[in-house]
This record gives sequence, structure tokens and C-alpha cells, in this order.
Amino acid sequence: MNNRMILYILGKVLRVTGILMLLPTYVAAHFREGCLWALLGTALGMMLLGTLLAWKKPAVSTIYAREGFLIVALAWIGISLGGALPFWLSGEIPSYIDAFFETVSGFTTTGSSILTDVEAMSRGLLFWRSFTHWIGGMGVLVFVMAIMPLAGNRSMHILRAESPGPDVGKLVPKMRSNAMILYGIYIAFTVIEAILLLLGGMPLFDSLVTTFGTVGTGGFSNRALSIAAYDSAYIDGVVTVFMILCGVNFNLYYLLLMGRFKQVLKSEELRWYLGIILLSALIITIDILPLYGNFGTSFRYAIFQVASIDSTTGYATADYNLWPELSKALLVLLMLLGSCAGSTAGGMKTSRFILAVKGVRREIKHMLHSRSVSTITLEGKTVREETITSVYLFLLFYFAILCGTTLLISVDGMDFTTNLTASLTTISNIGPGMNVVGPAGNFAGYSWFSKLLLSFNMLLGRLEIFPLVMLFTPTIWKK
Amino acid sequence: MNNRMILYILGKVLRVTGILMLLPTYVAAHFREGCLWALLGTALGMMLLGTLLAWKKPAVSTIYAREGFLIVALAWIGISLGGALPFWLSGEIPSYIDAFFETVSGFTTTGSSILTDVEAMSRGLLFWRSFTHWIGGMGVLVFVMAIMPLAGNRSMHILRAESPGPDVGKLVPKMRSNAMILYGIYIAFTVIEAILLLLGGMPLFDSLVTTFGTVGTGGFSNRALSIAAYDSAYIDGVVTVFMILCGVNFNLYYLLLMGRFKQVLKSEELRWYLGIILLSALIITIDILPLYGNFGTSFRYAIFQVASIDSTTGYATADYNLWPELSKALLVLLMLLGSCAGSTAGGMKTSRFILAVKGVRREIKHMLHSRSVSTITLEGKTVREETITSVYLFLLFYFAILCGTTLLISVDGMDFTTNLTASLTTISNIGPGMNVVGPAGNFAGYSWFSKLLLSFNMLLGRLEIFPLVMLFTPTIWKK
Repeated sequence: MNNRMILYILGKVLRVTGILMLLPTYVAAHFREGCLWALLGTALGMMLLGTLLAWKKPAVSTIYAREGFLIVALAWIGISLGGALPFWLSGEIPSYIDAFFETVSGFTTTGSSILTDVEAMSRGLLFWRSFTHWIGGMGVLVFVMAIMPLAGNRSMHILRAESPGPDVGKLVPKMRSNAMILYGIYIAFTVIEAILLLLGGMPLFDSLVTTFGTVGTGGFSNRALSIAAYDSAYIDGVVTVFMILCGVNFNLYYLLLMGRFKQVLKSEELRWYLGIILLSALIITIDILPLYGNFGTSFRYAIFQVASIDSTTGYATADYNLWPELSKALLVLLMLLGSCAGSTAGGMKTSRFILAVKGVRREIKHMLHSRSVSTITLEGKTVREETITSVYLFLLFYFAILCGTTLLISVDGMDFTTNLTASLTTISNIGPGMNVVGPAGNFAGYSWFSKLLLSFNMLLGRLEIFPLVMLFTPTIWKK
Repeated sequence: MNNRMILYILGKVLRVTGILMLLPTYVAAHFREGCLWALLGTALGMMLLGTLLAWKKPAVSTIYAREGFLIVALAWIGISLGGALPFWLSGEIPSYIDAFFETVSGFTTTGSSILTDVEAMSRGLLFWRSFTHWIGGMGVLVFVMAIMPLAGNRSMHILRAESPGPDVGKLVPKMRSNAMILYGIYIAFTVIEAILLLLGGMPLFDSLVTTFGTVGTGGFSNRALSIAAYDSAYIDGVVTVFMILCGVNFNLYYLLLMGRFKQVLKSEELRWYLGIILLSALIITIDILPLYGNFGTSFRYAIFQVASIDSTTGYATADYNLWPELSKALLVLLMLLGSCAGSTAGGMKTSRFILAVKGVRREIKHMLHSRSVSTITLEGKTVREETITSVYLFLLFYFAILCGTTLLISVDGMDFTTNLTASLTTISNIGPGMNVVGPAGNFAGYSWFSKLLLSFNMLLGRLEIFPLVMLFTPTIWKK
């Protein structure tokens, strides 16, 4: 284990985060808010600590998958610990654990909140809160595209190797330039959405905050009513489209840039993803028709909510807690799913879902006709059996964590649906759940123990379980 | 496909069920109840139909696993269709679909009920209702011990091959004598429990009904309050012990009879099973302590409910809907689990749970130390990789069915927890769920569509999914 290299890269991540924190500091200064000093102090502190850690590049700079995963896990925890400070130091979130929960929720692009009154917060901190989504989303892209492939053919993360598009490792041999292309697409989305929202009459501050939440598939809003506050079909539409776009495998945009339209259209995961969204939206539209009177309005709310949940963003234009049970149950199932691999979204991912469906289908065939031994394909390529088994295991992990968390947070006495969906929405990095933690509610009612557990859940989900498991295995730290 | 042999065996099963129905007919005659004619007529009709179908043994009497599975699926559906008639013909359950639901629930040893007033029913039909548990339990033993091993090394049912105890196929070459030994143990349990309940002051009728519900791990009671109606620590104790006993792999009793005590004590599944029950009971005892005041009473209620749910019986001595959330969440998790393979109980089974835990544990090790390739053992024997993958797949099937059913029955507008636990309790063959379908509630509020779907769920769970899937695959019926 190359501990010195781990600290070196960790230092660089902290320094960058500190530098990025200067942007909300500027916002706080612009609005002459008291949180300015908390933000500035933390930013400088993180830059200083980061610079110290990354002072000298270690002589041996080789790192392997193990180190890569550990760096990612430690980085997410490190920037969350640091990023929580301004909330706490400014006194706007009096409990550090609450501040940590909120920041983890930000960086993991979850969007679950402990705030009972969002609109009472200072603009500087609201900006920072949503900006963590944007930073987190970018981090995920790098993690998924650059770190995961390092694991090669083992671990549950080999899914990347099966995902559509060019093998990034071949096309762009250097991690740096690979990351740059992804950043470019990500920033382009940010700029376009922000402009479109401004054109819809949204204030600059709100459109930046909303954009950060959308492209990072996070879901923090500066308004208590989330996107419903703007009550505009145009804004709903823009956000819906960008939520869907940001749940797509970013490799596909890369392919688009290269002019390979056919390959994009043939993407199996993309078709399933869009198909699931459209079908679910139609079912919900019909189900909520009596509530909203006409098809248009119903569809507007339905497609928004489906896109929001399936892309694991978590914005709301309606309190779906008040919708009929069928719509609610469908939304809970979508919480399990998540969108495409290689996007900024969380969840178990559509490609894993496809492989599980194909695996189950094959098993039935296999049982009926003992002689049939067929391989499973995804995106036209044969998927190795190891990968399929790893998908099964991933889903088992997922369900086990879901069951375990639900049980443990039950101690706080919330109802079962609240606990189950709180566990689900955090591990899938969505944001709101049902009942108490529904779109009109928040996570404030949980104890510090449950809040820490749910924070851990968000990290588990974001890092697709493995890196965090590593972190808590003592033997990994032995040289 | 040997269709003639399928019909022949089906005929035999129908005839036996018809003959067994003469017992409740006698009860109805004894109490001079109007349901007498409905029972007698149905019994004679089933005997007649059965005799006609089994008139002549087909020339080719060879059957393979495929036929075995189909027979089991058709037999369960056939006797449920017939067994429902007395409820409907007597007018005591006006809707045939309700009567079918109740009978499927009986034969699958589930115990979910659509009755809103159990105590208003005639004794003859109450006896029949609980007797279906007893018949179903016996059927399951034969199915698990004699039919499943036919499948050999494929399908998800190969778990049998890994379960502890002697390989029945070797020790008792003939299915007939194998079944006889199991029947002997089953009948012995029935007699002993009934006598013990009588000694506790329970009326003869009640003790027979309660015994049928216990040894079949069913859960139908003739009292609205279930076992709570007797309010006796002695009766609670007897039922608790027998519920636990009947969730144990019956192979172990076979081993006990052969004097191989050591092998029984070493059984891994037995240890996990008892360990899970004890640990869960202790947690719930502490959790409900404030409700009942002292440890003794709390433990009595806790161990009863845990044994009832984990053995998939479904009796109640308390309305656990009113317990704290932690206890409720733990009970829901136990609903997933079920007890040992080779028992009369349903659920995913402890042995599958153990293999899943070991599989996940191995995967973590594997990810950390790429070179480690270890095999998984159960009961001291190495488990083949095919079996482990099949366990993963079984669990995926299980979760998929759970999700699908929950979604579909949501159309009726019940709350999410009710729908989820209704799906879970039926596929695990337990009986009550939470909220509306809790121990003090029933399934009457669901539409005919949901009732049929939940009936199907009970059959799926009882037959461990595969045979029913076969039944609905058109290609299987081609010659």
C-alpha cells in the first residue's frame, strides 16, 4: 500500500476543494453575509492542509486499483468533513453531525436534507450546499471513468468494462485528458441549462443552484417547495430534460462528439433507461389524472417526478406523498433502479438491472431445457459469467444494506415506510423518500446515530459499495 | 411429457384429498351443521373425479423431474380449486375467489385469511380450513424430500442436495417408504401437540385446529384473537416449541431416530436457525419491555412472535402492529428469512441465507486479496459454485416477485407497508403482515385481482417458484 501517494493525492483533492470553496465565499461577500468568514476560513484551511499533504510528490508514484479505491473513499469523506465546517462554524446548522450529513448528501449528489427551513439560510451557504453536488458529480465521472477501470476484470465494478462506448483506456490513454473531455461535457451541460433557466425568468442565483443540482443529479434546491416554487411548465420542462440527460452514460456523449450517432441509438442501456422513464411516466399520468384534471398537467408532473427519481436527482414539483398508492409504489421501485452506468447518477444502474433480468430469464430457460447453455449479451457484446455473478452479488449487497439500515434506524421510532425509503433514497443517492422523509419533509427527525448511518449509506451508494468496505477492513492497511 | 401419467397421479391426489375431506364432514355431522352437505358433496365429487382420472395406470409409467414438478403444481392448484367448494357451496364464504384464496392459503400452509369474523363460521368448515394446513404440510414434506431430488443437479432446488442428513435417495430407495417415515414423524408431532394442548385445558376441537396450524406451519386459528384467545403461558409455550420444532429440517429427526445425535447437534442450519430466533427474541423482548412491564411476559410474547414468523406459521399472541418500530422492522426482516430447508415452512430458508452470507463474505475477501479463491462449505461439505449462483438467482427471483406484487396490488389503494408485507407474507407462506393485513386484520379489503395475485404468490412461495414458472411456459407442454 503506497500510503505516501495516497496522502499526496488526498492533499491535492483537498486543495482543489478549498479553491472551489472560494466561489461560494465570493457569493457570501457579494451579498455581505455573515457566513463569509466561515467559508473563507474553511477554504483557506483546506487549501493549507492540502498544500502541506501534497508538498512533495513521493518518489514511488505508482498506484494500483486498491490505492485508487482507497483514495476515492478517503477523498469523499475528507472533503465532506471539511465541507461541513462552514455550515457549523457560521452557526447556521448548529450540530456538526447535521452539517456533515448535509455535506455528504451534497458531495454524494444525494440531496437528502436535515434543513427544516431552507429559505432561512444565507445565500453563500446555499450556494456552497448546491455547489457540492456539482463538485461531487464531477468527481463521480472521474471515479467511474478513470479509477474503476483500474480494477480490471475483478470486483463488482467490472461493469464499466461492459458499458457501451469506446474503451476509454484505449482512446484516451491518459487519465488527465480523459477527465478533461468529461469535464468539458459536464461544464457544457451546466452552462446550457443555466442559460435556459435564466431565459425562463429564473433569477441568476436560483438558476445556478438548480443547475448544480440537476447536472450533478443531486437535488438540493434553495426553495422550500423545490422546483414547484417556480410553478412554470417551461422550467419544469428544462429541468426534466437535463435530469434525463445527466442520467445517461457520459460515454454516449463522447460518441456523439465523435459523430457515431448509430452506435448511440443502438445503446441497449439507453433504450431501457428511456423506455422505463416513459412507461412509468405514462402509468403515473393515468393514475394521477383525477388529481390534476387533464392529461397535459398530469404528464408534466409525472414525467418530472419519474425523471427526478430515476435519474436519482430528487427534485419535486409536487408532493408525491399525496399521490395514489400505485404511483407511490412505482416511484419506490424506481428508487431501486437508478439510471445508467457512467453517469453522475446513483442507484443500482440500468445496466445491472438489464443483466439481472437477462440472468433470470436465462435461468428459466436453462431449467426448462437442461441442454441449453446460452451466453448473455449486453450492447452486442458477450458478458463474462464472472460479471453476471458479480451483478447478482452487487444486488445482494444492495438489498442486505437496505434491510440492515432499515432495521437499525427503526430504533428512532419512525414508521416502516419512512425508514425503508430513507435507507433506499440514501443508498441510491436520490434525496427524498416517502412519508416523513418525503418531498415536503426532511431527515431532521432522525437521531445522530441514524444520521451518521444514512451518511455512510450515501457514501456506500456513491462509491458502489466496494471502496468503503475496503476502508473498514483492517488487513488492507498492512504493508 | 407423459401427460397420461400426470393425470393419473393428479387423480390419485384428488381422491386422497376427497377421502380426507370426510373427516371435516364427520365433524359437521357431529355438530349437526348445515355445511355438512357442501362438505360431503365436494368430498364425493373429488373422490369420483379422482377415481375416474386414476382409473387405469398408463402403460408408460416413467416420469422425470419435469413431470414431477408439473404434478406438484397442478395438484396444489387442483386441490385448492376443489377444497374451496365447501366454503362457497355452504354460502359461508359467498365469493368463490375468497374461498379459493382461503383454501390456497390453507394448502400452502400460509394462513392469510379473508375472513372478517372467524368465529361465526361453522365448526365443520373451520376444521376443514385448518385441516388443509395439515394436508399441505404433509404434501410439502413429500415434495421437498421426494420430488425435488429428482431434479438432480440443476435448477434452484438443488439446495436439497446440500442439506444436512442422509441422502434420502440412498438410504430409502423407494419414495413410498421415504414418505412413510416422514409421515410418521409428522403424525407423531400432531398427536403429541394435541395431547399437550388438551392437558393445558384447551377444548378438543380447538386443540386439533391449533395443532394442524402448528405442525403444518400454517397459522389458521378458530379464534379471532388467534392463540391470544387462550391467554395461557402454558399454551403459548407449547405452541412456541412446536412451531420451532416444525421449522427444523425433518431429516434431522430422521437422524435422531437413527441415534446420530452428534450429527444433529453439528447441523449448521439448525444452529443459525435457533440462533436467529433467540437473538431476535431477545432484541424484541428488550424493545417491548416498557409495554409489558416485566422481562418474563415480554419474552413470552417476543419468542412466540419470532418463532411464529420465522417458522412461517403466523399465529399471534399479541397485536405486534402496536409494538415499537424496531420490533416491527425486525419481524418484517424475519418474514424474508423463513426457517430450515426440508421442513414444512416457507420463506427463502435459512440455508439459502447462510449461503448468501458466505457468498458475500467471500466476495469481499476476493476483492481485497485477488489471489484468494476459496470454496464455500455448508454442513461441512463443499458447495458447488452452480449451487451458490442458483441461490443468488433464487433471491433475485424472490425480490423481483416481491417488488412486482407490491406494485400490482397497490392499485387497490392500501398503504405501502400493507402492500409490501402482504406480498412478503404470502410469498413466504407466513400469514399476517403489517398494518391492514396485520394479526388483527385480514385480506378482505383487497380486490379479486389482488386476491388471485396473492394466491399465486402463495403457490409460488410454497413450490419454491420453479414448478409454477414451468406451468406457465407454453413450450413445456409440447410433446
